[in-house]
Amino acid sequence: MASTAGQVIRCKAAIAWEAGKPLVIEEVEVAPPQKMEVRLKILFTSLCHTDVYFWEAKGQHPVFPRILGHEASGIVESVGEGVTELQPGDHVLPVFTGECKECRHCKSEESNMCDLLRINTDRGVMLNDGKSRFSINGKPIYHFVGTSTFSEYTVVHVGCLAKINPLAPLDKVCVLSCGISTGLGATLNVAKPRRGSSVAVFGLGAVGLAAAEGARIAGASRIIGIDLLPDRFEQAKKFGVNEFVNPKDYPKPVQEVIAEMTDGGVDRSVECTGNVNAMISAFECVHDGWGVAVLVGVPHKDAVFQTHPMNVLNERTLKGTFFGNYKPRSDLPSVVEKYMNKELELEKFITHEVTFSEINKAFEYMLKGEGLRCLIRMEE
Amino acid sequence: MASTAGQVIRCKAAIAWEAGKPLVIEEVEVAPPQKMEVRLKILFTSLCHTDVYFWEAKGQHPVFPRILGHEASGIVESVGEGVTELQPGDHVLPVFTGECKECRHCKSEESNMCDLLRINTDRGVMLNDGKSRFSINGKPIYHFVGTSTFSEYTVVHVGCLAKINPLAPLDKVCVLSCGISTGLGATLNVAKPRRGSSVAVFGLGAVGLAAAEGARIAGASRIIGIDLLPDRFEQAKKFGVNEFVNPKDYPKPVQEVIAEMTDGGVDRSVECTGNVNAMISAFECVHDGWGVAVLVGVPHKDAVFQTHPMNVLNERTLKGTFFGNYKPRSDLPSVVEKYMNKELELEKFITHEVTFSEINKAFEYMLKGEGLRCLIRMEE
Repeated sequence: MASTAGQVIRCKAAIAWEAGKPLVIEEVEVAPPQKMEVRLKILFTSLCHTDVYFWEAKGQHPVFPRILGHEASGIVESVGEGVTELQPGDHVLPVFTGECKECRHCKSEESNMCDLLRINTDRGVMLNDGKSRFSINGKPIYHFVGTSTFSEYTVVHVGCLAKINPLAPLDKVCVLSCGISTGLGATLNVAKPRRGSSVAVFGLGAVGLAAAEGARIAGASRIIGIDLLPDRFEQAKKFGVNEFVNPKDYPKPVQEVIAEMTDGGVDRSVECTGNVNAMISAFECVHDGWGVAVLVGVPHKDAVFQTHPMNVLNERTLKGTFFGNYKPRSDLPSVVEKYMNKELELEKFITHEVTFSEINKAFEYMLKGEGLRCLIRMEE
Repeated sequence: MASTAGQVIRCKAAIAWEAGKPLVIEEVEVAPPQKMEVRLKILFTSLCHTDVYFWEAKGQHPVFPRILGHEASGIVESVGEGVTELQPGDHVLPVFTGECKECRHCKSEESNMCDLLRINTDRGVMLNDGKSRFSINGKPIYHFVGTSTFSEYTVVHVGCLAKINPLAPLDKVCVLSCGISTGLGATLNVAKPRRGSSVAVFGLGAVGLAAAEGARIAGASRIIGIDLLPDRFEQAKKFGVNEFVNPKDYPKPVQEVIAEMTDGGVDRSVECTGNVNAMISAFECVHDGWGVAVLVGVPHKDAVFQTHPMNVLNERTLKGTFFGNYKPRSDLPSVVEKYMNKELELEKFITHEVTFSEINKAFEYMLKGEGLRCLIRMEE
């Protein structure tokens, strides 16, 4: 048991005091974990678009001051009442969504949308008592999606922690706790392309490239990347993308371009932009009879997906996925193993690295669209 | 070999001389089968909405004079060049779509939309020579969807014939050659409900009731029928439907009514009306995480399916099916066996019976919405 168990820990955290303003590294107090909670030391975290989206607080309910961050890796410091699955020293990945193992979703083989611990972006407190575990001078600092990894220590519900192989390098598997698993699982768990098949990936950001990586691992022979930014094509080759389409280069809808390239359509498509027109293209570009389109990107709240129903009737399938259909506790450890046995390559996703004190640089890289993942090293 | 092999057969057929006018029983000449064709004696046929739709010829290219009919059972009279799989005396079901066994669709485990023999409602001639095998006084009478079963003898491509168990009663399995297999397969092959699950069926006509029959066979515990005609509910009970919803009885969308009845949505839904609003309801009424909606009904050509993409993202699946995903030659024999071993009940679908000379009565029953299937007995 760490000597800090049961005590308030004082440590550094990056506070988002208000929307769109640079984070400020401050000393916070982190209360001990309560029932079914775990306190962990974060070693590495990385920045995901979702952090930036909620930091900008455009169009949602603003929750400030808040500690953002949800892609991370760490080590258990202490556990609260009722936690039997984890103990101090365990290596874990915190996840923005959870697995209570008791609800209908957790018991279903098909779903990972846990009723208890499903992502909640508005809630800034812990479930057990409706309060925050973070404070500065007695005033609460709010949580973010149950993880708040931009802090040296954080408190997370045990259902949102994946216990992983302690030999796995935490500075690499860190990126599996959100975007990379989302894209990878969309392909491996939902689209399920066969060896030798064709896969179209819409959007070549980190999630889309993870979807392509999934297609590469599955043995797809044609991996067609679709993006409006031609600069992304060169990088995408590392992820197995071997053909490129920029919709701006054609006078007709990209689904028609792809159908012509592939004698009627691709076997699978994965949509990672969140743009509703890309979703429609992703659906309509799959082959009739057997094509499967998987939606990953989160749409605008007023978006409307529309298509002629004959496109469905002709034996196409449209599916959506959330976190790549992975159940955090049950499934993430095996994704880590895919990296350990060199099936999955993670290094190529990590294009930048900064120290914790430089965390605002990570935001700058992302706002400039530079690179894929910026690793934030908590220990200087 | 029948003594008629290689000869023109003179027999009776019901001719649709023009749109919407009663069929006329006339003597026709039926030419011998050509390469990859089979001539068969029809023993039973039944009337399906598609026959009526093309007889009315509203909104499509009219093809007259024509011999309609595509749900039927018969016995092979003679075979053309290259036909090795069938011989005179074999019992067969003709099907409006085919299976060449050589195209990408036939080779795919997932598709039954054969490139060569996929339904073609405009074509009134045989593939081999682009001509009709039917004539009256030397003038061609056109085929319908490659089957034209409203004739004592007809010529069909071998790829559109399922060879079935000769012990199967042809006056019952006749109905498997179109609508019943379409609904049944939509549930058993595509929606695939688990034992104890809930299934919503939209539209309680013959196809919808066959979908319900599939849910009953699969062991679904809640089978919710949705229809605007309350009269249909009593009959539907025989097909396993144990709950009913008439959308007209509620002020809110039926998907919300179903979600409330089922704690968030049904496990599976099957849409058999072709109405685009019912399609949207069928999709939106399935549970997030694992729900699967299957579209069967053929939409209006200008229909637009629309939904908020979050309904997809939340791990719902939308699929379409054609002829219940059955491959006619490979799969229909096993559906006949389901009837033979009493798993599938066909008698309850056959609500009316007429002789061939009374065929126009079958049209009247359907236009009045009376009954499910009217069997037409070719031999008086």
